[in-house]
Amino acid sequence: MSEALVLTLSCPDRPGITANVTGFLFEQGCNVLEAQQFNDRESNAFFMRVAFDPAGASSDTLRKGFAAFASRQGMDWKIVSRDRPRRVMLMVSKFDHCLASLLYRSRIGELPMEVVAIVSNHPVEAISHTDLSGLPFHHLPITKDTKAQQEAQVRAIAEESGAELVVLARYMQILSDEQAAYFAGRCINIHHSFLPGFKGAKPYHQAHARGVKMIGATAHYVTTDLDEGPIIHQDVEAITHADRPCDLVRKGRDIESRVLAEALRLHLEERVLLNGKKTVVFRG
Amino acid sequence: MSEALVLTLSCPDRPGITANVTGFLFEQGCNVLEAQQFNDRESNAFFMRVAFDPAGASSDTLRKGFAAFASRQGMDWKIVSRDRPRRVMLMVSKFDHCLASLLYRSRIGELPMEVVAIVSNHPVEAISHTDLSGLPFHHLPITKDTKAQQEAQVRAIAEESGAELVVLARYMQILSDEQAAYFAGRCINIHHSFLPGFKGAKPYHQAHARGVKMIGATAHYVTTDLDEGPIIHQDVEAITHADRPCDLVRKGRDIESRVLAEALRLHLEERVLLNGKKTVVFRG
Amino acid sequence: MSEALVLTLSCPDRPGITANVTGFLFEQGCNVLEAQQFNDRESNAFFMRVAFDPAGASSDTLRKGFAAFASRQGMDWKIVSRDRPRRVMLMVSKFDHCLASLLYRSRIGELPMEVVAIVSNHPVEAISHTDLSGLPFHHLPITKDTKAQQEAQVRAIAEESGAELVVLARYMQILSDEQAAYFAGRCINIHHSFLPGFKGAKPYHQAHARGVKMIGATAHYVTTDLDEGPIIHQDVEAITHADRPCDLVRKGRDIESRVLAEALRLHLEERVLLNGKKTVVFRG
Amino acid sequence: MSEALVLTLSCPDRPGITANVTGFLFEQGCNVLEAQQFNDRESNAFFMRVAFDPAGASSDTLRKGFAAFASRQGMDWKIVSRDRPRRVMLMVSKFDHCLASLLYRSRIGELPMEVVAIVSNHPVEAISHTDLSGLPFHHLPITKDTKAQQEAQVRAIAEESGAELVVLARYMQILSDEQAAYFAGRCINIHHSFLPGFKGAKPYHQAHARGVKMIGATAHYVTTDLDEGPIIHQDVEAITHADRPCDLVRKGRDIESRVLAEALRLHLEERVLLNGKKTVVFRG
Repeated sequence: MSEALVLTLSCPDRPGITANVTGFLFEQGCNVLEAQQFNDRESNAFFMRVAFDPAGASSDTLRKGFAAFASRQGMDWKIVSRDRPRRVMLMVSKFDHCLASLLYRSRIGELPMEVVAIVSNHPVEAISHTDLSGLPFHHLPITKDTKAQQEAQVRAIAEESGAELVVLARYMQILSDEQAAYFAGRCINIHHSFLPGFKGAKPYHQAHARGVKMIGATAHYVTTDLDEGPIIHQDVEAITHADRPCDLVRKGRDIESRVLAEALRLHLEERVLLNGKKTVVFRG
Repeated sequence: MSEALVLTLSCPDRPGITANVTGFLFEQGCNVLEAQQFNDRESNAFFMRVAFDPAGASSDTLRKGFAAFASRQGMDWKIVSRDRPRRVMLMVSKFDHCLASLLYRSRIGELPMEVVAIVSNHPVEAISHTDLSGLPFHHLPITKDTKAQQEAQVRAIAEESGAELVVLARYMQILSDEQAAYFAGRCINIHHSFLPGFKGAKPYHQAHARGVKMIGATAHYVTTDLDEGPIIHQDVEAITHADRPCDLVRKGRDIESRVLAEALRLHLEERVLLNGKKTVVFRG
Repeated sequence: MSEALVLTLSCPDRPGITANVTGFLFEQGCNVLEAQQFNDRESNAFFMRVAFDPAGASSDTLRKGFAAFASRQGMDWKIVSRDRPRRVMLMVSKFDHCLASLLYRSRIGELPMEVVAIVSNHPVEAISHTDLSGLPFHHLPITKDTKAQQEAQVRAIAEESGAELVVLARYMQILSDEQAAYFAGRCINIHHSFLPGFKGAKPYHQAHARGVKMIGATAHYVTTDLDEGPIIHQDVEAITHADRPCDLVRKGRDIESRVLAEALRLHLEERVLLNGKKTVVFRG
Repeated sequence: MSEALVLTLSCPDRPGITANVTGFLFEQGCNVLEAQQFNDRESNAFFMRVAFDPAGASSDTLRKGFAAFASRQGMDWKIVSRDRPRRVMLMVSKFDHCLASLLYRSRIGELPMEVVAIVSNHPVEAISHTDLSGLPFHHLPITKDTKAQQEAQVRAIAEESGAELVVLARYMQILSDEQAAYFAGRCINIHHSFLPGFKGAKPYHQAHARGVKMIGATAHYVTTDLDEGPIIHQDVEAITHADRPCDLVRKGRDIESRVLAEALRLHLEERVLLNGKKTVVFRG
């Protein structure tokens, strides 16, 4: 088998798209491995993901051939390698449980990514529970006064390292609108509550004060609208009256770690398509 | 075994309460069947629930004996029958799935309650999917102008029927502050969202618009602060981009029905104690 | 929109099936509403479900046209109405919680089915918690000696009532091999355990004795191999050491009811395809 | 506050135990922080856990005083420090995800334990994804012929390191009956299935072959009866027909890691009491 490719696309819905797309791939000799589609009747939009074995056809040829067809249909599309590790920049504060979880998953090959940069507003010594050996670490402290400058440095590191995706793995800093816009569509954040409940700071303490019986975490794309970006994945766990805020924080670490890892896997496998302020997620 | 009793109490925490309470029951010859306690370190409050076999001691004697002790400790307490069916008034709109679920559970003996009144702002014909035979049904239509009067009728029915608890089983009407205060601590509502997310009207449509990946339901005591009452129980279920608002409504019916039934069971078994704006829930 | 149709098919996997199938529908002027496919790399089998608006094309014409194409591909396929209520026979013992749940869902239009027969080995009086008014009820008692005869009666009722599906809604009787074979592929059972754990009788008592921390339920197609049929849906719930067998039975009723209802919905919407001893389930 | 202590006990049930136990603690001037009890009506056994502030009373004095009382009641009991890190030996194969998870939790202080030995049948190089720096690692290869000898070495290491608990963190070797008996009550295993389903080897492949719709993991005490020991904790996750065995293995890693960590936390906090072949688990 040649290196597998993934085609993802969205466009206004109309009859025949599936037939045309799969017909095109068939004519090119490609073998479909996995295909999903979704017709959003509300917005009249069509979404598709096809993983396929190009069976000898070059990805360049396929892209050229598809471009002509796609432009006639007003498609937003791409054809990319399915398995090539994406270049990822991780941003973290001193809470490093998500970082540790992502790095472990990366090391055992569970997440198809190459960590090209780790950025923290804390020095490397503050992240003492996680093995960062061999990974490019950047300490970029931030204050209200240096925020613009620090964010420029972050962009520069992303640029130089060729990062295709930025993951805020409990970074605990709010990106400026400029920064959020710069990384639009390629920056994933983990919020430690079941959004839209408990936006903002200290959500576990908010949850404790409100007396909810479940807590959760939400992985979403970062937008200029804080905690309002398109949601990729969420999960929750039951709690009781006996759980103190510190217990919620402990339980939350688990939920955050697995929700962020799952969202990242879905993104890396090109399974997440944007649909306005929402996402279409094509699981296996 | 005599008829089992339940003692529930809350008071400022201090050393020896458990020893004193269980010592008292032991001296009276009672056998403890189940006991739970909770020390809220934050508010320095103590909560306890003891189910016991009085082994011949009369509940009146026990209450008298306990009263002396309790008043010295500044206790809020009661001793009641564990198994006597509580008298319950159900209020419902034309969405009758919670009603159907509660009545079925009541009929097979799963919920220790006696339905002494069903009140709806819709005529009985609108509730056509549920067998109401043999149950006292009251059609009390409501408009902005008649609200005060209708609520007075509701109170009258509660009074006459001896209702100990009012359950808003998708009643879809907001109680006035006066009404909420009147039924304080003995009125349970089911809200069709995972509070504090999506307060107010049409939460499933709000959830769909926001693109969350799970929906839920919340059973809580009614207070004058809409959707802010002490939460008894919550649950959620995963959804996907393909779920339309009507799918959320369908999935939601299941969650609402089981969350309300569980909250009701907990309340009827005297397992829920109020702790300010929160609840202490002593499961078995 | 014309009445929506559903095409389901399975066949050996080969390149171009999706293109050919969707191409055929496109040529006939049909509009695809929802499509899912699955390539089972292990067995080299291909599965597909397409819901579509025939846009004027008659289902007979479509079937004829598709038959020629399908036979060349060695396809197992059908084209049926998506929304026409299926004719369903429900079989039940005196535990009627699943029955009550299915009938309620049917009555409010949640499950697209018409209940053409209810069969029980208990008299109608034993099923006292559920409103059976207007539904054809058949009391068919069964003993070891009359089993063959009773099963023949069941088949006759299925035949006469035109039942397309048989649902064992806690029927509590083991079908003979002959009966299981007769209803192969169109008989769904709910087993009150998380299979393959606790096969056979009294699974909640088995679970209690083993001290598991979760209990569950399993909806599966009935085969001659008891409790081994292809699984459609499963769910579980947490329990604790304090749950007695009667508590497990109570909690189990909820799980059984919702698991069976969901399996039934999936089947009625033609979302379940057989894949040897397993199922392919195309959720929305 | 003095160093908190935990009293756990089990004995035949009889009236007055709670009163006597809490009365004893009260007389000694201790302050109860948390207390749970369970009456197993089936076996007529009583279980209790009390965490308390001794408020100056020495643990030796308390033990002496309690011993006299306890022996009269036929109690199995202990009074131990609540917060002192327990000495733990971890055993692992080359699948190190549970190990990585436990070490991270230990390092951030989530699990009150001191890792006094790591034993593997693989060389340290095989465990390349986890930071073992500063931890005593023992490579003890095993074959059928050397099993008895290797197990003796394991016991020796446990002895020398003062290990109070042994955790089989995906050790993948079956302990001999002798070894299982030696570590009875202080050896926890994680089995990668929802027991009692899929005992024995390759449970994810068994689950895939059977076509179940959920997979799980089970943490239990090791006994001479393989996969039959008292269960401490279990959890599951939904899967679909599209999940290959490798996907189950991936999803399973998460479930295994969190189930084992939770079981370990419960054990380390003295929240798990043995009740014959089952456990009583006193959560917070």
